[in-house]
Amino acid sequence: MSEADKREGADVGQRGANGGGKSSAGSAEGHKSDELKLAAVYVSDAQYNRNVFFNTSPQCVRLYMLYNHWSLQFLVYVFIFVDLALALFEDPAFVPLPLWATYIMELICLAAFTARLIHYARIIPKQKFWKDPKNICIVVVILLTLVDMIIYGSLKAMDYHVVRWSRVFRPLFLVNVTEGRHLRRAFRSIRNALPQIIYVFFLFIISVLMFSLMALKLFGKRDLKTIDGRSYFTNYGEIIFDLYVLVTTANSPDVMMPAYNSSSTFSIFFIVYILINTYTFMSVFLAVVYNNYKKYLKEEVRQLVRAKRQKMVRAFKVLQEMRDEEPVVMQACWNQLVCVVQPNITNAHRELLWSVSDENKRGYIGKMAFLQLPDLLNIQVITLKSRTHPLEIWIPRIYSSSASRLICRVVQHRAFVYIYDFIILVNAVFIGLDEENSFFSYAEWVFLGLYLLEILMKLYTFEPRAFYARHQFWNWFDSIIIVSALVATILNSVLKPSDGYNGRQILDIVFILRVLRLLRVVDSIKRFRAIINTLVKIGPTILTFGQLILVVYYIFAMVGMELFKGKITYFENSASPGSEYCGNPLLKGSAFAKNNYCKNNFNNVWSSFVLLVELTVVNQWHVLASGFTAVTNASARIFFVIFHILVVIIIINIFVAFVLEAFFVEYTFSKGELQTSLEKKIEELELGIEQDKLDENLVEDMETCENDLGPSETVKGKPSLMFKIASKRYRTVDGLLQRMFEADLSPEDNADDEDPDNESPPGYNFPNPSYDTI
Amino acid sequence: MSEADKREGADVGQRGANGGGKSSAGSAEGHKSDELKLAAVYVSDAQYNRNVFFNTSPQCVRLYMLYNHWSLQFLVYVFIFVDLALALFEDPAFVPLPLWATYIMELICLAAFTARLIHYARIIPKQKFWKDPKNICIVVVILLTLVDMIIYGSLKAMDYHVVRWSRVFRPLFLVNVTEGRHLRRAFRSIRNALPQIIYVFFLFIISVLMFSLMALKLFGKRDLKTIDGRSYFTNYGEIIFDLYVLVTTANSPDVMMPAYNSSSTFSIFFIVYILINTYTFMSVFLAVVYNNYKKYLKEEVRQLVRAKRQKMVRAFKVLQEMRDEEPVVMQACWNQLVCVVQPNITNAHRELLWSVSDENKRGYIGKMAFLQLPDLLNIQVITLKSRTHPLEIWIPRIYSSSASRLICRVVQHRAFVYIYDFIILVNAVFIGLDEENSFFSYAEWVFLGLYLLEILMKLYTFEPRAFYARHQFWNWFDSIIIVSALVATILNSVLKPSDGYNGRQILDIVFILRVLRLLRVVDSIKRFRAIINTLVKIGPTILTFGQLILVVYYIFAMVGMELFKGKITYFENSASPGSEYCGNPLLKGSAFAKNNYCKNNFNNVWSSFVLLVELTVVNQWHVLASGFTAVTNASARIFFVIFHILVVIIIINIFVAFVLEAFFVEYTFSKGELQTSLEKKIEELELGIEQDKLDENLVEDMETCENDLGPSETVKGKPSLMFKIASKRYRTVDGLLQRMFEADLSPEDNADDEDPDNESPPGYNFPNPSYDTI
Repeated sequence: MSEADKREGADVGQRGANGGGKSSAGSAEGHKSDELKLAAVYVSDAQYNRNVFFNTSPQCVRLYMLYNHWSLQFLVYVFIFVDLALALFEDPAFVPLPLWATYIMELICLAAFTARLIHYARIIPKQKFWKDPKNICIVVVILLTLVDMIIYGSLKAMDYHVVRWSRVFRPLFLVNVTEGRHLRRAFRSIRNALPQIIYVFFLFIISVLMFSLMALKLFGKRDLKTIDGRSYFTNYGEIIFDLYVLVTTANSPDVMMPAYNSSSTFSIFFIVYILINTYTFMSVFLAVVYNNYKKYLKEEVRQLVRAKRQKMVRAFKVLQEMRDEEPVVMQACWNQLVCVVQPNITNAHRELLWSVSDENKRGYIGKMAFLQLPDLLNIQVITLKSRTHPLEIWIPRIYSSSASRLICRVVQHRAFVYIYDFIILVNAVFIGLDEENSFFSYAEWVFLGLYLLEILMKLYTFEPRAFYARHQFWNWFDSIIIVSALVATILNSVLKPSDGYNGRQILDIVFILRVLRLLRVVDSIKRFRAIINTLVKIGPTILTFGQLILVVYYIFAMVGMELFKGKITYFENSASPGSEYCGNPLLKGSAFAKNNYCKNNFNNVWSSFVLLVELTVVNQWHVLASGFTAVTNASARIFFVIFHILVVIIIINIFVAFVLEAFFVEYTFSKGELQTSLEKKIEELELGIEQDKLDENLVEDMETCENDLGPSETVKGKPSLMFKIASKRYRTVDGLLQRMFEADLSPEDNADDEDPDNESPPGYNFPNPSYDTI
Repeated sequence: MSEADKREGADVGQRGANGGGKSSAGSAEGHKSDELKLAAVYVSDAQYNRNVFFNTSPQCVRLYMLYNHWSLQFLVYVFIFVDLALALFEDPAFVPLPLWATYIMELICLAAFTARLIHYARIIPKQKFWKDPKNICIVVVILLTLVDMIIYGSLKAMDYHVVRWSRVFRPLFLVNVTEGRHLRRAFRSIRNALPQIIYVFFLFIISVLMFSLMALKLFGKRDLKTIDGRSYFTNYGEIIFDLYVLVTTANSPDVMMPAYNSSSTFSIFFIVYILINTYTFMSVFLAVVYNNYKKYLKEEVRQLVRAKRQKMVRAFKVLQEMRDEEPVVMQACWNQLVCVVQPNITNAHRELLWSVSDENKRGYIGKMAFLQLPDLLNIQVITLKSRTHPLEIWIPRIYSSSASRLICRVVQHRAFVYIYDFIILVNAVFIGLDEENSFFSYAEWVFLGLYLLEILMKLYTFEPRAFYARHQFWNWFDSIIIVSALVATILNSVLKPSDGYNGRQILDIVFILRVLRLLRVVDSIKRFRAIINTLVKIGPTILTFGQLILVVYYIFAMVGMELFKGKITYFENSASPGSEYCGNPLLKGSAFAKNNYCKNNFNNVWSSFVLLVELTVVNQWHVLASGFTAVTNASARIFFVIFHILVVIIIINIFVAFVLEAFFVEYTFSKGELQTSLEKKIEELELGIEQDKLDENLVEDMETCENDLGPSETVKGKPSLMFKIASKRYRTVDGLLQRMFEADLSPEDNADDEDPDNESPPGYNFPNPSYDTI
C-alpha cells in the first residue's frame, strides 16, 4: 500500500504543479497573487519539511495557509493537552470532577480534532485523505472514543462496573496530528530497529533461560533460604524472574547472598551471569539500537533533503520567467514571495538574503540560487541596530559625564564579573546556613540588593532593548530570577505577620529561586559554558523524546490504572489501621509495605506517572512489581516486564544513542566545519561584520551587550545596521538532524533534481506508520 | 623528557641499522646469519607491534630473540600471577600459609622479575634503560617490596601491628612488564581522556551540590522522617551523599518516599534531579569518555602503523641487494628470513606468501612488496590438505560400501542437524524436570549416548584431523563437553554407592555441562551466530579490559583489606551470638546486617573481589558503604565514592565505548570492505579457492568438515593443497584496533617512508606513562 501511496502522492503533486502553471481563470492580477501564494506554500513547506499533498487550486492553497497558521497549530496542541489532562479528573481521579464535566470537555476536544481533520480533508484530495493511515487512525480513535463514552455513561448510570478503555488511545492524537512529524519519525525509527533488536533479545532470553536452568540444578536441592525464609531457587519460573531482575541489577547482591553464604565459589556463577547478561548484552542492545537508529534516521533525513529540493523546484516552476533562454525569478517576484512566506521579515534582512542569492547583482536569480531559499530563511540572522542608549537621549549631559563613563567602564571590566562570582559564592554559604537567625535574613536582603544593583548597572551601561534581545539567555534568566525572588521575598515578609498565613509554598519558591541564582557562576567558566551550550542545543530534540515517553507512559498509566486501581492505598495518617500494609491485608509483611511504598500506586494519573518514572529508573522495580503481584496474581509481572523491555531497553537506549550522536557532532566538528556554504557567503560579503569579535562578545560571552559598537567601528557606510548569524542553538530539530548526517549524505542528495516531472524519486512521500498495530 | 627520549631512540636505532650494514667483523657466513637475524627481529617486532630499542650488535640481537621467546614471556606471566595470587595466602588469608612460605614465594617472583629486567637491560643501551619509566617503575617496586618485607617481617616478629603496604604496587608488574603494551595503552587512553572528563565531572558535582542545597531548604524544616526513624534531609553532608547515591539510582524510590508522602508535588524535584543528573549527565559521561577514547586510540594506532613501516624499512636496508640500480631482496634471502621469523611455517604457506609479494615472478621483490611482510604474516592462512579418511585406508572395502556411504550422506544432510536440535530441546525439558526420578536418570544416559553417537558418526564421515582442526570451535566445544559429561556422570554413579561420598561438586559440574550442551542450539540459527561471532571477535580486546579491571580491583582490594579487615565477620552458624549483627555491635539493626550482607567483607582477597564486583554493579552499594562506615567512620565513604567514580563512571564507560565501537565495525562493514588488499590479492591468485563455498561451509557453518573436497574439485594441479584465509576471529588485538580506524587513517600513514634516516617522525617511540603518579 505504501508503494501505491507514493506513486499517487507524486501524481497529485505533479498535476497540481502543472495545473498551477497552466490555468488561465480569473484576472491576471488575481492569478499572479494565487501563483505567489502557491509558491510561498511550497517554500514554506520546504522550510519546515512539511509533506502535505495539498490541492493546488487557489482556494485550497488559501485554506492550507490558514491550516498552517501558528495559532491553529497551537490550538490543536492545547486541545490535545486538555484531552490528555482529562485523566486527572476522571475516575480514578487526582482531582475528582463530575462525569458530565469531563464528558463536555472531552466532546469539545473531539469536536476540535474533527474540525481540524475536516479542514485537512478540504485541502488534500479525497483519495489521498483516506489512504493516509494517520487520518484513518484519528477518525477511528474519535469514533471509538464516542462509542466508549456512550457505553461507559449508560452502564455507569446503571451502576455497573465498566472500563473506560478508549483512554488508552488518547496519546495517538499526539502522534497522528499533522504537526507530530518528529514524533512519528521517532516511532518509525524504533519500529525499523525492532527486527535487529528482537534477534539480540531472543539470544539474551536464551542465555537467561540457560542460566536459570543451571541455577535450578545447582541451588534447588540445597535447601537454602532467602532472608525472609522462603526457599531459594526451587521454582523455575521464579528463578527466571529473579535472574531477569538481576540483569537490571535491581536485586544485585541480595539474590546472590544465600548461595554465596553457602559457598564462596557460587559467587562465580553470579559474576559470570552479570558479565554476560548485564554488561555484554546490555552494551550490545545499546550498540544495536544506536546503529539501527542512526541508519534509519540517515535514510529519512536523506529523503527529507530530496523532498525539500523537489518542492523548491515546483515553486520555481510556478514563478519562473524566461530571460536569455534561461528560466529565472525576478527580484520583485522574489521579494513578494519572501514577504508572503515570512511576513515579519525586515527589509534589511530580505535585502541581505537577496544579495547572497544574487551574487552577480543581475536583478534575477537562476534555479540553483532559488533552491537555497528555505535554507537561507532557516538561518537565524539577527539584525543589529546600533541604537543610542535612551538615557543619552533624555539626559545627555549627565550620561556623558566622567562619573557616568566610569560606571560604564566598571561594569564592562572583567573584575566586575569576578566580584559578582565571589558574591554568589558567599551567598551560597549563607543559603546553606540557618535562615531562622535574623542576621541571615537581613543578609538575604543585602544579596537581593546587590543582584538588583548589578542588573540596574548593566541596564545603565547597555542599551536595554539590546540587553533583553531574544537570544540573550542569561540576561533574561538573571532578571527573571531576581525579580521573582524580590517579589516572593517581599510577599513572604508582608504575609508573615498576618495570622492565616502558612506560606510554605511561597517560601519554597523563594528557596528554589535563591539556589537557582547560584547557577550563574557556571556560565562564567568557559569550559562549562561549552558543555552547557551543547546540552541546550540538543534540548529541542530531547523534547521529541519527551513526547515519546509521554505517549508510552500515558498508555501504561491507563492500563495500569484499570488493572491496579484501589488495590493499594496510602494513608496520610500513619496511625490508621491499614497503613502498615497499604490497606490491603495481602501485603502484610511484604517488602513493598515494609519499604513504605504505599504511595506508589495506580490510584490516579499523577501517582501512576511517578510510579512509571520509578520503574524507568529500574532500582527496586522488582519490589514494586512484587507488591502489585501480591495484590493481584503472578501474571501482573508481565505488565512490569513489558514496561521494562519497552522503556528501559529500547527507548532509553535510543535516548542515550541520540545524546551520544548529538554530542559527537557538537564536539567533533569545529565551528568552521559546521558553517554551511551560505553562512560562508554571508561572511564573504562582509555583511556579518567581525564575526569573531561578535561571537566572542555576544554569543559566547553573553554578558556584554551587542550594540556596544562605538562610532569608530561603523564600516562600509552601514553604521546603523549590522547582521550576524545567530547561535545555532535556535536551529530546528530537523536542522540538527540534517547537520548530524550532512557529512555522510551522498552528494547526489544535494544535487539539483534536473527532471522532477519524470518520476517521483523513492521516498518523496513518506508512508506513515500504521499505529493501529500498537 | 619524552622528546629527548624519542630522539635518542631514533639515534640508537639508526646507529644500529647502519652498524649492522657496515660492520665487517667475523666470517662472511656468520655475518650473513647475523644480518638475517637482525632483519628477522625487525620483521617480528613489526608483526607484533613491539617498540624496543635494542642494540643491533649480533649478541644483543640473539639475546633479544631469546627475550621474545614465548616460553619466557609465558613464565613472566606465571610469576606475575603467582605474585598476585600470594594475597590469597597472606594475612588476612583465604587459605592461611605461614609467613616464611609466602616470603619465599615472593622472593622467587621478585628474583624472576629482576632476572627478566637484567636480561632486558643487556639488550638495550644503558641510558635508554634508565630513561624508560616502566623499567624504573619495576625497579622501584622491587626495592619497595623488599624494604616492606624486611620491615613487616621484623616488626611482626616483635608482635607489632604492621601494614603490608607494598602489596598495593603488585599490579604494577602487570602494567609495566614489556608485554603489557595493550594494558599500558588502555591506561594512557584513560589518562588522556581525564581532563575532559574532569570538566564534566565538576559540572555534575556543582549540579549535585545545588540540588542538595535546594533539598536542604525544601525538606530540612519539615520534620520528615525516613522509614527507620531518622530525620530526613537535615544534614547537608548527608544530603549530598544521598543525592549522589540517587544518581547511581541505588536508593531510587526510597530516598524520595518521605518527601513524596508529605506532598505529591515534591516528586517533581526528584524527577527533575534524575532527568538531569542520572540520565543527561551519565549519557554525557559516556559521550565524553567514548569520544576521547576514540580520539586518542586513533592517534596511537596511527603511530603504530608508522612505527611498523619504519622497522620494515630498516629490515629492508639490512637485507637489500642492488639489481638494475634498484634495491631489492632476493627470494632465497626472503625465504631464510621468513623461516627465522616464523620457524613453524609450512613450505607451501611460505611459497604462497612469496607469490603474493612477487607478483611478476621476477625472483626478487622491491621495497614496497617487502614492507607488506608483517601484514602477510599476520593473515592467518589455513593450509588445507585433502587427506584421505583413515578408515578408507584401513578398511577401504567397508568404508566405501553403500551402507557406509548412506551413513555419510545422512550425517551431511540438513535434517541430521534438525533432528539433533530437536533432541537438545527435549533434553532441555528433561533437565528441567526432577532428576531424582529414576526414569529421568535413565533418560540422561540415553541423551549422553545420542550425543556420543553424533560425534562418532561425524568422525566416521569427516576426516578426524580436519574435524579437530584448530579453528573448529564448535566441534571442540561439543566433544569436550560430551566427554567431560560422560566422565563426570560415570564418576558420579560409580561413587554414589560408596559411603564417604558427598559428591555435590561432581554433580554440580555434571549439571553445568548438561546445560552447556544446550548452547549448541544457538549455533544453528544464522542470525544468532552472527551476533555471537561478533562477540567472540571482540573477546581478546575484552581481555585487556579484564587486566585493567584486575589492576584496579587488586589495588582497591589491598587498600580495603588494610582498612576494613576483621571489622565485619560472617558466621557460618547462624545460631552463634554475633551472627545477626555480623559480629560487630555497631551494626546492630543496620540495613547492612538486616540484609544479611555479613559475608560481603574485606576479610580476604576473594570476598574483597566479590564485594568490589557488587560495588561495580552499583545496586545497594550505599548499604554496603554504610555498613563499613558504621564500623569505622564517615570518611570510609570516600573509599566507596572514589571506587564508584573510577570504575563505574570511567572504566565501565570505556568498556561500553569499546563494545559499541567494535560492534559498529563488525556490523557496518560488509565482509568485502574489510578485506585488506592482500587478502584480495590472494583471492585474485585463485589460491584461496572458492572462498564463498569454503566460508559457507567452514567458517560460518562449522559443522561440516573442511576437507570434504571431492577429487573433482582439485583445481590448477594442486589437488592436495588448498589455502584459505582464516576467519578474522583469530586476529590480534592490534589488528582489530587497526581495522577499527583503518578507514579514518590518513593515507600518509600508509605511504612509504622514503627517507627514514632523516629524522624519526613524532611518535615513533611511545613515551610510557609514568605510573608513579598512580
